[in-house]
Amino acid sequence: MRKEMFNHEINILRDTYRRLLRRNAKINLIKLTGKTHPADLAEVFRHFSTEEQIQIFSLMKENEHAAEFLVELDDALVIELLENESFDRIASIIKKAPTNDQSGILNILADEKAQSIIELLNADKQEEIAEIMGYPDDSAGTLMNTDVFTLHESITAGEAIKTLQDQEGAEMVFYLYITDDDDRLVGVISLRALTTTPSSTKLKDIMIKNIHSIRPETDQEDVARIVAQYNFLAVPVLDSDSKLLGIVTVDDVVDVIREEATEDFLRMAGAGRDREILLKSSWENAKARLPWLFASWIGGIGAASIIGAFENMLANIVALAAFIPVILGMGGNIATQSSTIIVRGMATGRVNIGGEIKLIFKEIKVGLILGSLYGILLGIFAKFTFTNAPDYLGFVVGLSICASMVIAATVGTIIPLILRKLDIDPAIATGPFVTTSIDILGVLFYFLIAGIFLKI
Amino acid sequence: MRKEMFNHEINILRDTYRRLLRRNAKINLIKLTGKTHPADLAEVFRHFSTEEQIQIFSLMKENEHAAEFLVELDDALVIELLENESFDRIASIIKKAPTNDQSGILNILADEKAQSIIELLNADKQEEIAEIMGYPDDSAGTLMNTDVFTLHESITAGEAIKTLQDQEGAEMVFYLYITDDDDRLVGVISLRALTTTPSSTKLKDIMIKNIHSIRPETDQEDVARIVAQYNFLAVPVLDSDSKLLGIVTVDDVVDVIREEATEDFLRMAGAGRDREILLKSSWENAKARLPWLFASWIGGIGAASIIGAFENMLANIVALAAFIPVILGMGGNIATQSSTIIVRGMATGRVNIGGEIKLIFKEIKVGLILGSLYGILLGIFAKFTFTNAPDYLGFVVGLSICASMVIAATVGTIIPLILRKLDIDPAIATGPFVTTSIDILGVLFYFLIAGIFLKI
Repeated sequence: MRKEMFNHEINILRDTYRRLLRRNAKINLIKLTGKTHPADLAEVFRHFSTEEQIQIFSLMKENEHAAEFLVELDDALVIELLENESFDRIASIIKKAPTNDQSGILNILADEKAQSIIELLNADKQEEIAEIMGYPDDSAGTLMNTDVFTLHESITAGEAIKTLQDQEGAEMVFYLYITDDDDRLVGVISLRALTTTPSSTKLKDIMIKNIHSIRPETDQEDVARIVAQYNFLAVPVLDSDSKLLGIVTVDDVVDVIREEATEDFLRMAGAGRDREILLKSSWENAKARLPWLFASWIGGIGAASIIGAFENMLANIVALAAFIPVILGMGGNIATQSSTIIVRGMATGRVNIGGEIKLIFKEIKVGLILGSLYGILLGIFAKFTFTNAPDYLGFVVGLSICASMVIAATVGTIIPLILRKLDIDPAIATGPFVTTSIDILGVLFYFLIAGIFLKI
Repeated sequence: MRKEMFNHEINILRDTYRRLLRRNAKINLIKLTGKTHPADLAEVFRHFSTEEQIQIFSLMKENEHAAEFLVELDDALVIELLENESFDRIASIIKKAPTNDQSGILNILADEKAQSIIELLNADKQEEIAEIMGYPDDSAGTLMNTDVFTLHESITAGEAIKTLQDQEGAEMVFYLYITDDDDRLVGVISLRALTTTPSSTKLKDIMIKNIHSIRPETDQEDVARIVAQYNFLAVPVLDSDSKLLGIVTVDDVVDVIREEATEDFLRMAGAGRDREILLKSSWENAKARLPWLFASWIGGIGAASIIGAFENMLANIVALAAFIPVILGMGGNIATQSSTIIVRGMATGRVNIGGEIKLIFKEIKVGLILGSLYGILLGIFAKFTFTNAPDYLGFVVGLSICASMVIAATVGTIIPLILRKLDIDPAIATGPFVTTSIDILGVLFYFLIAGIFLKI
């Protein structure tokens, strides 16, 4: 219900923009872009043609609002928009944005272009941006906000509130960070505690000293996990001397969680990891998906070679071929179930180091339960529909389904566990690896079992 | 790196608890449970045997800390822990918790048990809990915190700060909600703005009047989308008279986003939707996965029947059987890619109403590109490895791969779009539906193409 309402609102907004564009009502368009929430503007831009996007963007004022809009916009659209913009205009748009947003936008652009724009900013800014861009991709360093409001531990609550009144830039002030003479972070105090404390009390007497902090190199997934686990609104980023470099706020963590989930979905399906794949051309799309399909192609070649080796058996009992799809399909599906449960369990902290063996045995048991059930069902089906096939066909097919499902559940469990041990993201290759193995192993066991019981 | 450190810390905590348990050091255990963060305690409990869990829980003090711990704990473990607890102890643990946490815990228990515990609470509480439990599952109403701090619009900033100092219970005060004479929400003000305003200013002159609000029936996924989109720290929940019922805070939204992602992962893999499936027995596990495998079993039966109908053709050209796995496998994998991209695109707002036709054509094009490439590769492979097969085998196999991949990309795109139109969660059945259709369609087209070109 709400989702439709949400879409409905965006559609109304889109139509309003289109109407103004048709009428070439520039002044109204400028007003409307200023009044539209940056996040809504970024959403509605997905509905516009490239030409419409460029037209509207060219009318936008060069202010913080425009910078926020660029931060919310999909990267692919940012590149398109800024392609033909002058360096001066881009610089004046991002000039007033927080440093992490500036480096975020610059990171999307080509290196040379980004460099030329950076040179248009003042020297202090240049240094700050260089520092943030030096941190690894997807780390706390690139995520953090560096405009943090700090107070010295020896001042009083009253003085702190006065200082606060003069500060404009600092974002999201709800925790106040307290430092000592050496600029090291020594405590934190909530704005609420500050307002409810007698004004002569010294900060060091009311601050919380036990602070959870992270390093700029901390991976954003781990930052998200810490913030989610402890319900933080922000977490401070410290260097090796305990100096406060910045804070990562919960709103950025929300974006990280959504982005990481999308990437995991795509990876598990073997569809690359580009969250904006829907905005890309068919060729780029195909290019991202091609390598993962290659894994499954190899699996298919493997299966074809195995079946080729059993050509004589097949020539005698053609009915065997009819059950290849169901044996591989059931195997593939139970393997996908197992690997998804394990990969997601790892991501949510439910698969713990040390419990692997127990987990594998449990999945084998699940495979046995489901394999026996569907094996019996399929055996009966085979027995009564392929009546002129050998007597044992139903038994062979049933046993093969069971074997294929037990093997598949086991492989689907073990592969992500091995990938984690090797420090490879288990999501990245679970899908294609698992289905490829099942194609080969399923066919192999099927024909081996047939060979034993049908005595050709 | 960090993730391992995180696990490492939890392992140390687990060992400490185990050591104290072995020594039966009750006083130390009581102290340690009080000092461990509720979220860490919930995490470490996953490592304990049921017996250890019950032992430790029985020692915990009946306070807010214990209630927070139960909120963080997996539902399956809560049920286990509270099974043999007296109603009195449970009531005294949850007595001081916020109403949404109370109803959250009670919701996990059997109805009768929950009712008996509710009767032990005071009359006001009983009414509040009944109200929250009356909202639909997974709605803003069950998620919201009802202990909200409100101020009247006619008081001054100075009076507001004084009132704030007397309030203890209200959670997460960073936005202050302002009401009129009829208790309707008319504005909001940040704590920061309040502290930096002259104390004689009336709230109504500084409050923000344009507020984004939600209704108690709003689905939690939509709440999450709104909070993520606008970077809110909290969003107010209003009834039809604009009266403030409660607020949903960002920390709860973070949990919702993670939980919904996990459910979508499991659904797409056809593994039910129980996030705690890893904590369940093998039998329960098998039961949750059984129905989705049935879809793939039906697909397999369909494929077997089709192949059975072409038995004569197969008897003449046995080599045809060798390529069944690769044709279905490549089809299944490209279909999974397509449906994952579409389902995730819908969840992140990148698939918009009205753009469906364009999307389908784009996926068909991707299917054609990848299908042609892998078709040619496989055709060549078939031609040169199955040398005593008919001349056209390579061509038939290549064309079939291409057809299967184009059909699969199309079906993988259309099924989630249709499910959304029918108001069914696209994630819930995309996986099994898609692979089942591919099994049947892939085999059908393969043998039709073979029938045309190999002229049997």
